Amino acid sequence: MQRALSVSRMTGNRSTFPDWYQAVVREADLAETSPVRGMMIIKPWGYGVWEEMQRDLDRRIKETGHVNVYFPLLIPLSFFAKEAEHVEGFAKEMAVVTHHRLMSEGGKLQVDPDAELEEPLIVRPTSETLFGDAFQRWIKSHRDLPMLLNQWANIVRWEMRTRLFLRTAEFLWQEGHTAHATGEDAREHTMRMLEVYRAFSEEVLAMPVIAGEKPENERFPGAVGTYSIEAMMQDGRALQAGTSHYLGQNFARAQNIRFQSATGDLEYCHTTSWGVSTRLIGGVVMTHGDDDGLRLPPAIAPRQIVIVPILRDKPEDAEVLAYGEALARALNAQSALGGRIRALLDTRGARSADKRWEWVRRGAPLIVEVGPRDAAGGQVTFMRRDRLRDGDKVQNRSTPRDVFVAEAPGLLETIQQDLFAEAKARLEGNVRTDVASFADLADYFGPAAEDEDEGSPFRGWVRAPWSRPTGAALEAVEAKLRALRLTIRNTPLDQSGPGGACLFTGAPAVEQVLIARAY
Amino acid sequence: MQRALSVSRMTGNRSTFPDWYQAVVREADLAETSPVRGMMIIKPWGYGVWEEMQRDLDRRIKETGHVNVYFPLLIPLSFFAKEAEHVEGFAKEMAVVTHHRLMSEGGKLQVDPDAELEEPLIVRPTSETLFGDAFQRWIKSHRDLPMLLNQWANIVRWEMRTRLFLRTAEFLWQEGHTAHATGEDAREHTMRMLEVYRAFSEEVLAMPVIAGEKPENERFPGAVGTYSIEAMMQDGRALQAGTSHYLGQNFARAQNIRFQSATGDLEYCHTTSWGVSTRLIGGVVMTHGDDDGLRLPPAIAPRQIVIVPILRDKPEDAEVLAYGEALARALNAQSALGGRIRALLDTRGARSADKRWEWVRRGAPLIVEVGPRDAAGGQVTFMRRDRLRDGDKVQNRSTPRDVFVAEAPGLLETIQQDLFAEAKARLEGNVRTDVASFADLADYFGPAAEDEDEGSPFRGWVRAPWSRPTGAALEAVEAKLRALRLTIRNTPLDQSGPGGACLFTGAPAVEQVLIARAY
Repeated sequence: MQRALSVSRMTGNRSTFPDWYQAVVREADLAETSPVRGMMIIKPWGYGVWEEMQRDLDRRIKETGHVNVYFPLLIPLSFFAKEAEHVEGFAKEMAVVTHHRLMSEGGKLQVDPDAELEEPLIVRPTSETLFGDAFQRWIKSHRDLPMLLNQWANIVRWEMRTRLFLRTAEFLWQEGHTAHATGEDAREHTMRMLEVYRAFSEEVLAMPVIAGEKPENERFPGAVGTYSIEAMMQDGRALQAGTSHYLGQNFARAQNIRFQSATGDLEYCHTTSWGVSTRLIGGVVMTHGDDDGLRLPPAIAPRQIVIVPILRDKPEDAEVLAYGEALARALNAQSALGGRIRALLDTRGARSADKRWEWVRRGAPLIVEVGPRDAAGGQVTFMRRDRLRDGDKVQNRSTPRDVFVAEAPGLLETIQQDLFAEAKARLEGNVRTDVASFADLADYFGPAAEDEDEGSPFRGWVRAPWSRPTGAALEAVEAKLRALRLTIRNTPLDQSGPGGACLFTGAPAVEQVLIARAY
Repeated sequence: MQRALSVSRMTGNRSTFPDWYQAVVREADLAETSPVRGMMIIKPWGYGVWEEMQRDLDRRIKETGHVNVYFPLLIPLSFFAKEAEHVEGFAKEMAVVTHHRLMSEGGKLQVDPDAELEEPLIVRPTSETLFGDAFQRWIKSHRDLPMLLNQWANIVRWEMRTRLFLRTAEFLWQEGHTAHATGEDAREHTMRMLEVYRAFSEEVLAMPVIAGEKPENERFPGAVGTYSIEAMMQDGRALQAGTSHYLGQNFARAQNIRFQSATGDLEYCHTTSWGVSTRLIGGVVMTHGDDDGLRLPPAIAPRQIVIVPILRDKPEDAEVLAYGEALARALNAQSALGGRIRALLDTRGARSADKRWEWVRRGAPLIVEVGPRDAAGGQVTFMRRDRLRDGDKVQNRSTPRDVFVAEAPGLLETIQQDLFAEAKARLEGNVRTDVASFADLADYFGPAAEDEDEGSPFRGWVRAPWSRPTGAALEAVEAKLRALRLTIRNTPLDQSGPGGACLFTGAPAVEQVLIARAY
C-alpha cells in the first residue's frame, strides 16, 4: 500500500489536522508561500480550480442581473476617514502606498524621498467606499435602480498569521455592491445572493452549508444585517464560506447616495454587499481531502478525467498513445455537469506510477490507465478518486472502453453527488442539539489548543436555544464563549428545532444559534 | 439628422481627434476617470468588452500549451535591485508600499509611523522577477521544460500624463512567462505568441496590424529581441498593441534559472515574456469609432444584437414585449463567430429613441426595433451599426422576423469582416514607400503639435529602406526622428518591398523599417 501523503489526518493525534492541511495543499500542488510575506503563489492546478469556480459563480451572478466592473486598486486615505470616524470595528491593518518612485543612490536602489505622495493611497481592503462614491455620481432617478454591480479583484489586508488560502495578506475575491430604492428590495437581494452562495457551495463545491444571520456584534461594520454560510470542516471547525450584508441606508447617508423617487422626492438608497474569496479553495480541501491528498468535486476539477498511458520505451508505445488520444477525444466530445468534459492524456515523460499518484494527490476525479493490453483488448482500467480504497487496497476497475466512454458523464455526476452526500452526512451527524447547559457546552468542546496550529480533536457544532441577547448581554455571552475559543456562527434561516430556555441567558428562546470553533 | 457625439473627428480641425476619442469613451460608457489620480473605473460596457477579449485570448493562450497562475501583487524592493543595477532603462516610477497600518490620532486617520515595513514593497509594474524566482525553484530537469505560464493581473506604473485605456497608472493585462531548454525553442515561442497576438488582433478585434522587430534601443530592458504588433489609428498614429520578448539567458543568469540537461549538465534556461493589456480597448475605439460613437466588432461586443421595444404605455405593449422576448430567445439559441449569439431585449423604462441612440453610441453591432406593427406583421426593423448612414440619412431595414433570425449569424460575421476590411484598407492605403530622403520624411509628416492633446492632421506611416544601424549611429537616427516627434515602430516580418540605400544612413539597406507618430 502506498499513501500519497506523509501526514495522516485520521490518527487521532491532536497536532495533525493543520499539518495534514498544509500537506494536502502542497502535495496537490495548489499553492505555495511566496518570497512576499503572507502572500501566496497560486499554482496552475490551484488557479485552475479557481477558474472553474469563477466561471460557474460568475454565471450565477450574471443570471441574477449583475454586470461586472473594475474599480481602482488604490484608494485615497481620505476615503476611509469618514468610515473610521463613525464605524466601530474599522480595521486598520492595510498596505499603505506613500511614494511613487525609486532612485539609485551610490549604486543602491531605494525609495526616492522626493517622491512622497501628497495623500497616502491604500491598497484596497474592500472597495465599498469607491463603489459608494460611484453610486453617488451614477444614480439620479428611481429608474437607475436597482443598480447591480460586481467586481472580481485582488484584495490586501495585513494579516499577521497567515495560512494558505484560509488567511493570506492578499487574496482574490468577488465583491458585489448594489443599490436599491427600498429597504424591502435591498433585503430581498441580500437573501437572494446568500441563496446564490448556498446553491453554489452545495451544488458546485459539494460543500454543504448552513445559512443564517450573524449576531449583531459580528455584523460587517456599518451593516444592518450580516448573513453567512457556514461549512463544517473535517476537524469539526466551522469555515465562514461567504457573507451577504444588508447595509440599510447607513452607507448611503455617509456617501450621499440619493435618488429622485417617482413622486419627485430625494431619498437615500438602500445598499447591499456580498463576497466570496479564494478561501473557498481551503474549504474544499478541508471538506473533501483524505489521507491520499485532495479529492476534487468534478464540477471544479480543472481536469475531470486524466488518462495515464503506460509506456515502456518500446514500439507498442505508439499504439498506446494513439489509443489514449482517441479516448481523450471521445471523452472531451461529451458533456457532464452542464459543460464539456475536461479530459487530459498525460504524456509527460515520467514513470506512469508516479504520474498516477500525482493525479491521486491532486484529486482528479477519474484516473484512467491504458497499457498495451488495454489498447489491444479495447479496455480501460480506471479508479474513482473519491472511492480510492477498500480498506487499504486501491480499487481499480477494468471495463470495455466504449462502456467507459458512455458511462463517464454519469460517473462524474455520481462522484459529485457522492462527495456532497458524504460531507452532508458529516454535517448532519455532528450538530448536537442535546446540550442543555453552558457547563455541558464547555464539557463537550473541552479546552482548545493554545496554538491554533496544533489543531484540536474532532468536535462538531452545537445548536442551542437562543434568546437573542443584545448589547452588554450579548458581549457577556461572547466573552464566555471566547474563553473556550468558541464562536457564535449564525442563527440558521431554517428554524425548525429545539426551543425552551436560552442556553446562555436562561430567558425564553426565540430562535436557535450555532456554536462552533471556527477558522 | 441626429449625431450621437458633439465632437466630430472628421472636421479637419487639428484639435479634434483626442477630444473625439475622449468623447467616444465617455458616450459609449466604457470608462471614466476615478477619484484616484491616473486610475480609471472600467464601466460595465467597457468591462464587458474586456471579458470578451479575455475569453477569446485566454483560449488561444491555453491552446498553445500554457496554464494560468497567480503571483503576489507586492514585490520586495530587493527583487528590483539586481535588475536596476545591470539593466539600462530600468523604469523607476512605481507605487511603493512603506507602511502596513493606519491609526486615529486626535480623531484624524493617518499612517501609523510605528508600522513601517522593514523592506518597502513595490506594487507590481510587471512580474518578471517573481516568475524568475519561481522558475529557479520549480525547474530542475529538462523534463520540466518548456514551462509555459500566463497570468491575468492588474499592474501599476506611475504615469504622469494619463489617458483612459491608452496610458493609465493602473491597467489590466496578461503576462506570459516561459522557460525553455534551447534558444531556438525560446525564439520559436516568442514568434508563436507574436502570431497569437496578430491573429487575435485581426480576427477578433478586427484591427489589422504589422508584426515586426523593434530596433535594439527599443527593446524591453534586458531582452535579446523585442517584437511588436503595430496598428494604425484613424489619425494615422501607430498604437503598439502587443509585444513579445525573447530574453535569451539574461534573466536566467541574473536569477540562476538552471536545468539539468539530458546529458547531465547544468545549463541556463532561455526565457520569453509577452503581454497585451486594456490598452487594446483604446485601440478598438480609435480603429472603429465614428462620429456617432463606438462601433464594436461582434466578436467582442458584450451584446451583439440589442432589441429596443417601442412601448407607448398602452395595452398592446404586452404583445410587443412578448414578441421581443421570443425574438431574443430565438437569436440567443443560435451561434455565430464560434459562440452563442448574445442578444438583449432592452426593457428599461426610457424613451425608445433614447435607448436606440444609446446603443448606437455604445456600438452594438445590430440594433433592432420592434413596435406594435412589427409584432402584428411578423416583421423587424434593424440597423447595422457599422453602416449606420447613407450620407446623413440613417439606414433602417425592415424584414420578416424569421428571415432576420435565420440571417443574423451571417450578418454578424459580415459585420466582423467588413470592419476588418475597412481598417485594413486604411492601413494598406496609408503606408508610403515612396519617401526618398530624410528631408522628404520631415516634409511629409510636418511639425507635430507641441501638446499631444491637440492632435495632428492625418499622416500615415512611412516604410523605408534601413541599414540597421546600431549603437551611436542608431541613437543619432532616433534623435533626428524625435525632433519630429517620430518613432521607429518595427522592421516588419514581411520584408517584400523597397530596397536601395538607407533613408537615414545612406548605407545599403538590409531591410525596411516603419516610421510613424505613435501613442
